[in-house]
Amino acid sequence: MSAFQPDPRLVGDSVPVCDLPLCTVRLMRDGRFDWLLLVPRQAGLIEIVDLDEADQLRLMQEIAIASRVLKTETGCDKLNVAALGNMVPQLHVHVIARRKDDPAWPGPVWGVGQAVARPETGQQELVERLAAAFSGAVR
Amino acid sequence: MSAFQPDPRLVGDSVPVCDLPLCTVRLMRDGRFDWLLLVPRQAGLIEIVDLDEADQLRLMQEIAIASRVLKTETGCDKLNVAALGNMVPQLHVHVIARRKDDPAWPGPVWGVGQAVARPETGQQELVERLAAAFSGAVR
Repeated sequence: MSAFQPDPRLVGDSVPVCDLPLCTVRLMRDGRFDWLLLVPRQAGLIEIVDLDEADQLRLMQEIAIASRVLKTETGCDKLNVAALGNMVPQLHVHVIARRKDDPAWPGPVWGVGQAVARPETGQQELVERLAAAFSGAVR
Repeated sequence: MSAFQPDPRLVGDSVPVCDLPLCTVRLMRDGRFDWLLLVPRQAGLIEIVDLDEADQLRLMQEIAIASRVLKTETGCDKLNVAALGNMVPQLHVHVIARRKDDPAWPGPVWGVGQAVARPETGQQELVERLAAAFSGAVR
């Protein structure tokens, strides 16, 4: 089996935040939403059920960590958690901080308008703040 | 705390299939998609992280069961798994069998067109087939 490599489309759309035991965490390059991707670092995964049972549970633990980090750091109104993969089959879980005044509310975020780049310094500060929050959240 | 009651909007949009240890399983009344809802039977839940940790893991186990049932029973091309709740805040997880020729592919299903009712007998047969598959899948 070949080694894990994140799909180039995920890499192009996002920047790295940190690694958890199972997943690498990335932030979407879209200033309209605080939007994380969790990508399990195993080659050949498409569905959640392609993970073995222990890693399925680990994935849920990491979804919970990402949920708490986003909720605390953004004060969002709602979390959206989803594994879709219709466009990019490589298994990845979206964890998205939603606000009642965001441009897609109350609909889902996928396919809505065009991503809006963050200023470089703002993005870097957000990545560092999120990485610090993950570091504090992982026991 | 008041007892669990499924949100009337979820009840209106779906029919019961079976109960798993944590969640009640419902089938959306929409013949365009084979689309299940998993609704944890606890009052007051909005986010996955409102469940205690043991029940978060139980939820993942039940998502995996529903995923395998749908994959086996429908032969779908892809599964979509999501907890959104922007419209109906009560915690519920969508597990959806997607096909490359379904009317929303490759986009998400939410908010796409209008639901198409199944013939009553077809819906009843599908519910019975799914309930039997869940019964066989739960250890």
